[in-house]
Amino acid sequence: MKIAIAQINPVVGDLKGNADKVLDYAHRAYAMGGDLAVFPELTLVGYPPHDLVEYESFVREEERQRLAVARLVPPEIGLILGGLAPSERRTGKHLHNSAYLYEDGEELGVAHKALLPTYDVFDELRHFAPGFGCSPIRWRGDRIGLHICEDLWNVGPEAHPKYSLNPVKELAQSGATLLINISASPHSQLKLSSRDVLIQSAATFSGLPYVFVNQVGANTELIFDGSSCVCLPDGRLATRLPAFEEALQLWEWPDSMSKTDGPDAGYTARQPMQDLHDALVLGIRDYFHKTGAFTKAVVGLSGGIDSAVTCALAVRALGPDRVVGVSMPSKFSSDHSVEDAVHLAEALRIPLLDIPIRGVVAAVDQALKVSFAGTEAGVAEENIQARARGTLLMALSNKYGYLVLATGNKSELAVGYATLYGDMNGGLSVLGDVFKGSVYALAGYINKDGTVIPKRTLTKAPSAELRPDQKDQDTLPRYEQLDEVLRRYIEEQESLDEIGEATGFSRELVARILADVDRNEYKRRQAAPCLRTSSKAFGPGRCLPVVMRRVHR
Amino acid sequence: MKIAIAQINPVVGDLKGNADKVLDYAHRAYAMGGDLAVFPELTLVGYPPHDLVEYESFVREEERQRLAVARLVPPEIGLILGGLAPSERRTGKHLHNSAYLYEDGEELGVAHKALLPTYDVFDELRHFAPGFGCSPIRWRGDRIGLHICEDLWNVGPEAHPKYSLNPVKELAQSGATLLINISASPHSQLKLSSRDVLIQSAATFSGLPYVFVNQVGANTELIFDGSSCVCLPDGRLATRLPAFEEALQLWEWPDSMSKTDGPDAGYTARQPMQDLHDALVLGIRDYFHKTGAFTKAVVGLSGGIDSAVTCALAVRALGPDRVVGVSMPSKFSSDHSVEDAVHLAEALRIPLLDIPIRGVVAAVDQALKVSFAGTEAGVAEENIQARARGTLLMALSNKYGYLVLATGNKSELAVGYATLYGDMNGGLSVLGDVFKGSVYALAGYINKDGTVIPKRTLTKAPSAELRPDQKDQDTLPRYEQLDEVLRRYIEEQESLDEIGEATGFSRELVARILADVDRNEYKRRQAAPCLRTSSKAFGPGRCLPVVMRRVHR
Repeated sequence: MKIAIAQINPVVGDLKGNADKVLDYAHRAYAMGGDLAVFPELTLVGYPPHDLVEYESFVREEERQRLAVARLVPPEIGLILGGLAPSERRTGKHLHNSAYLYEDGEELGVAHKALLPTYDVFDELRHFAPGFGCSPIRWRGDRIGLHICEDLWNVGPEAHPKYSLNPVKELAQSGATLLINISASPHSQLKLSSRDVLIQSAATFSGLPYVFVNQVGANTELIFDGSSCVCLPDGRLATRLPAFEEALQLWEWPDSMSKTDGPDAGYTARQPMQDLHDALVLGIRDYFHKTGAFTKAVVGLSGGIDSAVTCALAVRALGPDRVVGVSMPSKFSSDHSVEDAVHLAEALRIPLLDIPIRGVVAAVDQALKVSFAGTEAGVAEENIQARARGTLLMALSNKYGYLVLATGNKSELAVGYATLYGDMNGGLSVLGDVFKGSVYALAGYINKDGTVIPKRTLTKAPSAELRPDQKDQDTLPRYEQLDEVLRRYIEEQESLDEIGEATGFSRELVARILADVDRNEYKRRQAAPCLRTSSKAFGPGRCLPVVMRRVHR
Repeated sequence: MKIAIAQINPVVGDLKGNADKVLDYAHRAYAMGGDLAVFPELTLVGYPPHDLVEYESFVREEERQRLAVARLVPPEIGLILGGLAPSERRTGKHLHNSAYLYEDGEELGVAHKALLPTYDVFDELRHFAPGFGCSPIRWRGDRIGLHICEDLWNVGPEAHPKYSLNPVKELAQSGATLLINISASPHSQLKLSSRDVLIQSAATFSGLPYVFVNQVGANTELIFDGSSCVCLPDGRLATRLPAFEEALQLWEWPDSMSKTDGPDAGYTARQPMQDLHDALVLGIRDYFHKTGAFTKAVVGLSGGIDSAVTCALAVRALGPDRVVGVSMPSKFSSDHSVEDAVHLAEALRIPLLDIPIRGVVAAVDQALKVSFAGTEAGVAEENIQARARGTLLMALSNKYGYLVLATGNKSELAVGYATLYGDMNGGLSVLGDVFKGSVYALAGYINKDGTVIPKRTLTKAPSAELRPDQKDQDTLPRYEQLDEVLRRYIEEQESLDEIGEATGFSRELVARILADVDRNEYKRRQAAPCLRTSSKAFGPGRCLPVVMRRVHR
């Protein structure tokens, strides 16, 4: 059997557009000699749909489009599509998240997702009823063990597993000759390798080839890396589709591989910085093109590293013709900041607008003269500068249809070292899930084949330049310490005691950081969507009350 | 048995503070002669905790505080507390949402919530494992059918019920002599009466008295109305605690009621506008006091109805000494707008700052002169005014610790008739879940005992006053039509066809409104938390992708 793996990039909700794409891929798969074309989870819906599936009209339209696709594909090629199904249970949610096998317009089998992830960015029990159990679908002499994404993720032995069912085991034990998993498995750093381990375990445990078909592309904050693959029963990788791009690839079973390499053959370790870079580039590109609302992207260039990296990534995502830099110096901006912004724009070959904010800040100060009489300049005055810049960027956005990219990093967002309605402005936050330390590493990666980001931007001490001689480190702990505490608190959910013990940092320092994180939830609730690249990003995957009191110990 | 119903207002996460409150109430209950003090769901945690319960250190501390409370209460009085419990299942989530019965420091019984709501604002399957089943807890000659919030909500006959279990039925059939439900049941308009119907059904169906103990208070966007009550086996209401405030009340069983009134005795219909008013007042008050971060609230007063109603509610919540109005006229502001703001401030007895924005707008225009050369004035220029005002309000907030209240209503938020980083600025959106039509009704209610909101504010045509002679109705459909379409689309999740058929409005009009709602999700994702008063508010209870394409039919 020749299986065509169709790693597509759908637009969430665009049932007709995604259906057209599926038809195109299915016809190409047929032309390549494929017997069976396999598409990712919730193929026509796109993942994640969230509350779209609560609309009955949407559910009906999904079925209509899916049946139409099944009828329009050549009768000689089978089709596996992810789709919605009415629940087979008498109670509970009304829908299943399902995988259908079609041939010649007929539905030959359906599998309902049994393990419904409901943690972090996943909310599937909000919308779906779990499938009861799994049995293979007979087709052309094979018995296909069809299952969906999370159904793979209960393989390992754990003291208290997330789920009681193990669909992969069940399918293997009920006579499957081939395992096919259709997924929409979001990317995070290091996830790729843990997924590979699971896939390899599933293949070797079951003694069956494992076909993994993953969605690619970014949908709002989630980035899907694709990286679909086939793993042979002995654990060797038979084929791997590219990461971060659409692809269609044929694989024939029985496999013709004659290699006698070890079980690790075919796996190549990816570079974390390459992954991070490629993920963010795809995230920007898809946000820009899928919304279809923008003419260009615009980035405020301060001369600092965050805006430089954001802008460089934007240029790689959209091309230099679609990116505009804006320099908005104040009276506190140093000459080198402006110069660094100019050098960056030159290196990226993008236009740089120069819009000084002194006049705007003076006008705001003047308007507030009476109200602020007798007070010392402080955070209020600093934020006026950030908000003047935010207002100018949004004016350009409104006037010319530009997408404003927010430039703040995860370390700043975490402790609230950012101005709400100021430098936090933007349709998309590119680095909001990247700690400051990783922003430097990413800048190094961007510069690896020649200087794009000016050297001085990489070496000078970070500063918001909102008052004379200000440095981030006047207010914040050193970024190496800050990042470590934040990672443990946010991503590992460790306590004050645990962090103190593990890092040796003073209790006072750690307590202060944790309190800052808690207190600034109100800013993050109004932040632009952050491209997610870690296991725990700010945004929908981390739900904390804005109003709360939390005592750390 | 004398049961003390302790309707408390906890702060989410404040384990120690809430424990102190519980101790205070328990001691008062004992002093009143109570045998058993009953507290709401997740008593010490506060509801909803969201991902706080993912932190093991928080879970450990909750147990520590709960056991300490149980030990510190007089041994003569029983105590029912909501709390966390380790899951009894071998797989799945690690925690139950539970109700404990304590006496003299001993745990005498525990019930685990069996029905875990996971829809709208509820995410309990994200954190909790469901209880298996329910049996009454024996105590002092009674058998208490203890259960939690949603456990009540599977009473009615439905074709496809949400849950397979019916804990109330199960408890009644296994010999309970008394049903006690501890809840954190959020308020929405009309919810109170539907809850009453359920409680009455549960009591009459089981033939048992039904004690309903609800949380009161607002936590971020959710408002809890309290309104705890006891319903007798014949359906009569034995006692009702007040709505929207803390209370402690004793009820003795067997009940001494000698009334022979019909089954509806004791129920009084509440006025919807009174409910809405009281809910929003509580929402503002609790946001302000529970964060503990603010000195006053500040509202930009445009002379329009939204800001007038917001400000009047703020004064009722915080008192006139804690509210500041700001008039920020532009060259497009009419004289009557400024006058109306002055009259409102006088009626409310609050200070009104006058900060004209002409200079700021001129400075922004000047800064953009080159960039905007040769373009027509339009939305970009209009938004500059809104953002100038937003910047000024935030400057006052930063300088003096004011809470900025956002004034936009649900109709505007829905279709994006609001400026992101402008008039959408604020820590809390007071009217973000109130349609324009209801804002007028609410204004009428506020004025019922004398004019607070100037008559002209109520009668003039709504205008954003961002260009000469602008009226909302230049851009938007009439609010009566808009609100009806929005309610059906957002709250009833009806389709284009269904709305067209039900309302008779033109397909073009309805399609345009639906497309506007979809397209403006990006603004709402960055909106201030909206106090929730409907069955479907913008915010965490309505999760839709920012990046999506949706074709309506």
